[in-house]
Amino acid sequence: MKKATREQTKAHNKNLVLNAIYAHCEISRADLARITHLTRSTVSEIVTELIDDGLIKEIGLGESAGGKPPILLCIESEANHVLGIDLASGEFRGAVINLRGEIKNRVDLSVENITGEEALLVVYQLIDRLLELTDRPILGIGIGAPGLMDTDNGVVRYAVNLGWQDLHLGELLKDKYQLPVYIANDSQVSALAENSFDSNTQVDNLVLIKVGRGVGSGIILNQQLYCGDGSGAGEIGHIKVDQPGELCRCGNRGCLETLISSRAIRQKAKEIARETPHAYLNTSVADIESITLEDVYAAYQNGDPDIQALISHAGQSLGQVFASLVSVLNIQRIVIAGSMSIFGDGLIKSVLNSLEASALPALVNGTQITTSKMGEEIVMLGAASMVLQHELGII
Amino acid sequence: MKKATREQTKAHNKNLVLNAIYAHCEISRADLARITHLTRSTVSEIVTELIDDGLIKEIGLGESAGGKPPILLCIESEANHVLGIDLASGEFRGAVINLRGEIKNRVDLSVENITGEEALLVVYQLIDRLLELTDRPILGIGIGAPGLMDTDNGVVRYAVNLGWQDLHLGELLKDKYQLPVYIANDSQVSALAENSFDSNTQVDNLVLIKVGRGVGSGIILNQQLYCGDGSGAGEIGHIKVDQPGELCRCGNRGCLETLISSRAIRQKAKEIARETPHAYLNTSVADIESITLEDVYAAYQNGDPDIQALISHAGQSLGQVFASLVSVLNIQRIVIAGSMSIFGDGLIKSVLNSLEASALPALVNGTQITTSKMGEEIVMLGAASMVLQHELGII
Repeated sequence: MKKATREQTKAHNKNLVLNAIYAHCEISRADLARITHLTRSTVSEIVTELIDDGLIKEIGLGESAGGKPPILLCIESEANHVLGIDLASGEFRGAVINLRGEIKNRVDLSVENITGEEALLVVYQLIDRLLELTDRPILGIGIGAPGLMDTDNGVVRYAVNLGWQDLHLGELLKDKYQLPVYIANDSQVSALAENSFDSNTQVDNLVLIKVGRGVGSGIILNQQLYCGDGSGAGEIGHIKVDQPGELCRCGNRGCLETLISSRAIRQKAKEIARETPHAYLNTSVADIESITLEDVYAAYQNGDPDIQALISHAGQSLGQVFASLVSVLNIQRIVIAGSMSIFGDGLIKSVLNSLEASALPALVNGTQITTSKMGEEIVMLGAASMVLQHELGII
Repeated sequence: MKKATREQTKAHNKNLVLNAIYAHCEISRADLARITHLTRSTVSEIVTELIDDGLIKEIGLGESAGGKPPILLCIESEANHVLGIDLASGEFRGAVINLRGEIKNRVDLSVENITGEEALLVVYQLIDRLLELTDRPILGIGIGAPGLMDTDNGVVRYAVNLGWQDLHLGELLKDKYQLPVYIANDSQVSALAENSFDSNTQVDNLVLIKVGRGVGSGIILNQQLYCGDGSGAGEIGHIKVDQPGELCRCGNRGCLETLISSRAIRQKAKEIARETPHAYLNTSVADIESITLEDVYAAYQNGDPDIQALISHAGQSLGQVFASLVSVLNIQRIVIAGSMSIFGDGLIKSVLNSLEASALPALVNGTQITTSKMGEEIVMLGAASMVLQHELGII
């Protein structure tokens, strides 16, 4: 516990007003007072400060409720921009994002066969390019990276694919760009994106599972990202679900990743195509090697029984891990994101079947599983959301 | 978000001072100011209020640091008493507990073959008896009950063994005794006890697993009990760990409880004793039926290989669930309580082996697993701690 001060009270109430304006798009001072339960004069004082800060503006008159029509307030979307960076999608992606979470500009840079120090140079290049694309003051840089992060200290502890270990990325970028920098795991920031920018998923508690080349999750408790003792909360990709199971790149066997990552699914689909001449998967050897996840999805949709069995089995494994998630956290809102979410309702059905058989029915009832609607920009938006939350208190 | 007020700031700082006095046993006003970072005059003002409330007292002079020796303050342990009730240990147990978490009086009542309405009457009887044993003002009643609770509303949703479903226990007791009542699951309050009263386990995040007749856990995040969307967080006893597995009383198969609850272990030890004449377990049929967990433990300690294999297998199943816990929460402090914790280091070794093979090594490193030192009073103490936290803000 730390002491509470009058300054904290003031800052808290300023956040409260800013969040209310953010949530309601166009709102009068009177309505702000009603929603926040602050007095009219406190609201007016805070609004004046926020207008002076350039964060909000008056945008005209609302409808009169009898007397004088009220002046409506809204966020000054372009007051500041934020850089949202995604290092976890096979290439390095970056976006200039405004205060409303709208993407103003995008830059993608290839990192094929690039790791270590070289990959770091690509991060600098990406940021340099993004900074050239905006003339607004930059509030900060948010980064979603693959692997284990030390969120508190901005350190990438392990990112196998990038060949980074204990890289003090936060410090390096802070020194180079003189801007606030926030780093978290890509699944963790995706959960923030879902929580901040999808109006259908504004709940107190939420788990987002990102199933792509790797498998991870982000946990939102009381509208805040929960990271745990070592920033690794949600690292569910290496929970053992198969006995003895295939060897995983982590050194253990039977990890969830070996059964449901897009990498694993493509690998298994190739094996299926090699073994049996298939109606839907292309079977000439040259093509088998280039089977994409979209090819697998097409075969799935066309009713290929082996591919359907493959996805069903993958979904069951995921359901087993969901059973643990639901039993540990009793969270009723689970969102599946990442490239594997294209398998949609079919995948969710297998997940649910297995979940129901693997956890207390009373806990499973009421659990809602959906796929994310946010698309491939989710990590960049989540990274930006992290900056908005830390710098402006916008949840 | 809710508005912050000056009253909240005041209440927060009063809690801060009370917690500091609670933590330090004997402390001066000057040291309180140093620890809390509040001004000397704010501390003096709050101390006067707390003395007026009767919650703290002056107990004499401390050592001089040069000038006038300081007056030492401490908690008035007997200012109020709290009732801590345990409905989850085969009998109904209750204690009168002081503000320091010291048990002043105990009452245990048998509930063998008693369920439903009758069991509720035993709860009343227990509370009546406890109230007769103290003449101090009662701060509130805390209850740890088996099964699924609705903590917010004080409702027992399901307690199979007691034959209770949707029992509004909190309301009934509040009406009858005109006292504040707090109810949570027995594993959840045990985690609170460990967090509040074991000075070795004062960390921010902690999971306590209670393995007795049932299996459950309590999760402390940022020093607060985390209950989830439906108060069921930590209900890990019915996570599926065995394929296909034995039928569990929840209706599913292969639940953790079927492998490691004291009930399951006694059952399996009986089967072992029936199948093979054993050196350490008593094998005459009449006695086999009465084998206790202590008998199983004696056989285990004497090196009975079948019993050692039984415990090792149970520990492995628990390790599998710990893998999920550690991966989801990244919590480094896990405490095992309940009757099965007598298997101590041997059990922990099997758990660790399985944990290491079933989760990302980087997450597992640094995880500390110990057994609780709190003994059979843990649920009563945790229930009391819940009252202290809600009524006085003492963590």
